[in-house]
Amino acid sequence: MNWLEQPVRPIDATARAAAEARQQQLTKPAGSLGQLEQLAIRLAGMQGRVCPQLDRISIAVFAADHGVTAEGVSAYPQAVTAEMIRNFARGGAAISVAARLLDARLQVWNLGTVVALETLPGVESRIIAPQSGNLLRQPAMTGVQLQQALDVGREAVLQSPCDLFIGGEMGIGNTTAATALAVALTGYSAAELTGPGTGLDSEGVAHKVRVIEQALLRHGKERSPLNLLASLGGFEIAALAGAYLTCAQQGVPALVDGFICSVAALLACRYQPAVADWLIFAHHSAEPGYRRLCEALPSLPLLDLGLRLGEGSGAATAVPLLRVACALHAEMATFAEAAVSEKST
Amino acid sequence: MNWLEQPVRPIDATARAAAEARQQQLTKPAGSLGQLEQLAIRLAGMQGRVCPQLDRISIAVFAADHGVTAEGVSAYPQAVTAEMIRNFARGGAAISVAARLLDARLQVWNLGTVVALETLPGVESRIIAPQSGNLLRQPAMTGVQLQQALDVGREAVLQSPCDLFIGGEMGIGNTTAATALAVALTGYSAAELTGPGTGLDSEGVAHKVRVIEQALLRHGKERSPLNLLASLGGFEIAALAGAYLTCAQQGVPALVDGFICSVAALLACRYQPAVADWLIFAHHSAEPGYRRLCEALPSLPLLDLGLRLGEGSGAATAVPLLRVACALHAEMATFAEAAVSEKST
Repeated sequence: MNWLEQPVRPIDATARAAAEARQQQLTKPAGSLGQLEQLAIRLAGMQGRVCPQLDRISIAVFAADHGVTAEGVSAYPQAVTAEMIRNFARGGAAISVAARLLDARLQVWNLGTVVALETLPGVESRIIAPQSGNLLRQPAMTGVQLQQALDVGREAVLQSPCDLFIGGEMGIGNTTAATALAVALTGYSAAELTGPGTGLDSEGVAHKVRVIEQALLRHGKERSPLNLLASLGGFEIAALAGAYLTCAQQGVPALVDGFICSVAALLACRYQPAVADWLIFAHHSAEPGYRRLCEALPSLPLLDLGLRLGEGSGAATAVPLLRVACALHAEMATFAEAAVSEKST
Repeated sequence: MNWLEQPVRPIDATARAAAEARQQQLTKPAGSLGQLEQLAIRLAGMQGRVCPQLDRISIAVFAADHGVTAEGVSAYPQAVTAEMIRNFARGGAAISVAARLLDARLQVWNLGTVVALETLPGVESRIIAPQSGNLLRQPAMTGVQLQQALDVGREAVLQSPCDLFIGGEMGIGNTTAATALAVALTGYSAAELTGPGTGLDSEGVAHKVRVIEQALLRHGKERSPLNLLASLGGFEIAALAGAYLTCAQQGVPALVDGFICSVAALLACRYQPAVADWLIFAHHSAEPGYRRLCEALPSLPLLDLGLRLGEGSGAATAVPLLRVACALHAEMATFAEAAVSEKST
């Protein structure tokens, strides 16, 4: 059996219920810590312990180039994908800085760049092709390439045991692929979901909409998540979907970054709906299609700070909220311990 | 001259402009870190250095009892104010846990509780009265008491030099006082601004609305911030207003917690509008009147997690976001340093 078909691990209902009961006893009005309470309770159910921990955080950034950049859909030249991989390795990118601050393990997975890269520290080379196929004119990848990309996502999760997994992505042109997938998955139009990505002007966005519309016409009414990935995806998007699926199978909570990661998460959930139990959505991307993705998943992201950088940076930014939630849950006194009077009405 | 009249320190425009220029050079699409960019730039202007720091965080929780609790406006008995001060001192409250996690200094300022308290570690006793006057029937405090409370806020800021100040509050009944002040300051009705506080049911909220309406009738059309504080405030709310004013005079960034702290911040801004330059709003309180406070200030809070605990807990939860913003700002590579290509269009 292909690992993709392995079932998702169930949430630990006992640990979850015990965490819920503990929240009711902490010295605060019931519910007054809002989503922080729900985070601690969900993490308890995922980790199978009343007081969840977030010491070991693993960040995997998947990088790949996209054939569709030939259509002029990005504000940045394609060489930036490889240049940013070097920047990750040297510690100068946003996710590098955030990983250090969080004391998280950062690993970069290179799935294929047009500019070939030398060996770099912290970068695993898993080259599938220099870039995906141009989805406007051909499938983004073959079935074999799709399986390779999914396998890299699995490898990233299995290689680094952790309390919380974060996936990130880098790939010039990848909002075009992700938006095409989002249109196919949600039924909204390309015009409703397409945004500026790294910074297109309005003319650039209009062109990107036309490219996505034509690509969708070419690829027809396909709705199977795996076939959609092969037709319209990118290597790094497929790796992310494989990573989220693996997290759910292995019982690892996954903190999902912004637009592109959420498209990969939606694909994984369409493939096996119970994947959703293992996902925490970190932030509301500034990419305009994100709101519709939230409805489709559904999700209630923790942050809404206008972030649209990618790399896993929004998820990394949300990690301290989860740590605050866990610390409050574990360390606050109960009403009985503190001899504080309970609600009188 | 009373210290209240001292002018607010101006923001350092040179440091702010240099921080803004630095953000444009970091290896990311311009603007893609959203509010995190703005936070770093604002903090640079406040701290007068291109790369702001947040090593020393000072949290002052002001606690006091409220005469208006005699009207049955809270879900919890009045003894909880003193009990929670003990809980702060023992490290079991939410803000105690958060302060440890942030490596912040936590100081509690007791302005007067109905249940007299023993000497407690980390608690400064500045008793003004066992409780404020019942604002439904008399002024909440005299002019002398108001000045004492404002002075405690000033003392708390001056006593603990820091890179960021957080004020918190504890006082059974204090959403009634804060809401009455908010009605007087914003012009919205009591029905529009009143919420459940620590957990009133709908009948309790309706009663609280009537108490606030009658109190406002009694105290007339007063709009001076100091007179409003004396008529409708509480000792801890006045201390918070004094603390925010002092922060702005001394050049200390202040991270403002939820509903009650934001009312105190609005009072300080009405007294000296330039105080607003020194305030960062941490989170969108679940208290329903908060949205109107945001419009009145105006403010764009960082978090919206349904928190409504008080104690400064929402502000403490937001601190890591500011630290992420500062780390990204200081440590990310520039395009030139990383040899990453810039935008092509």
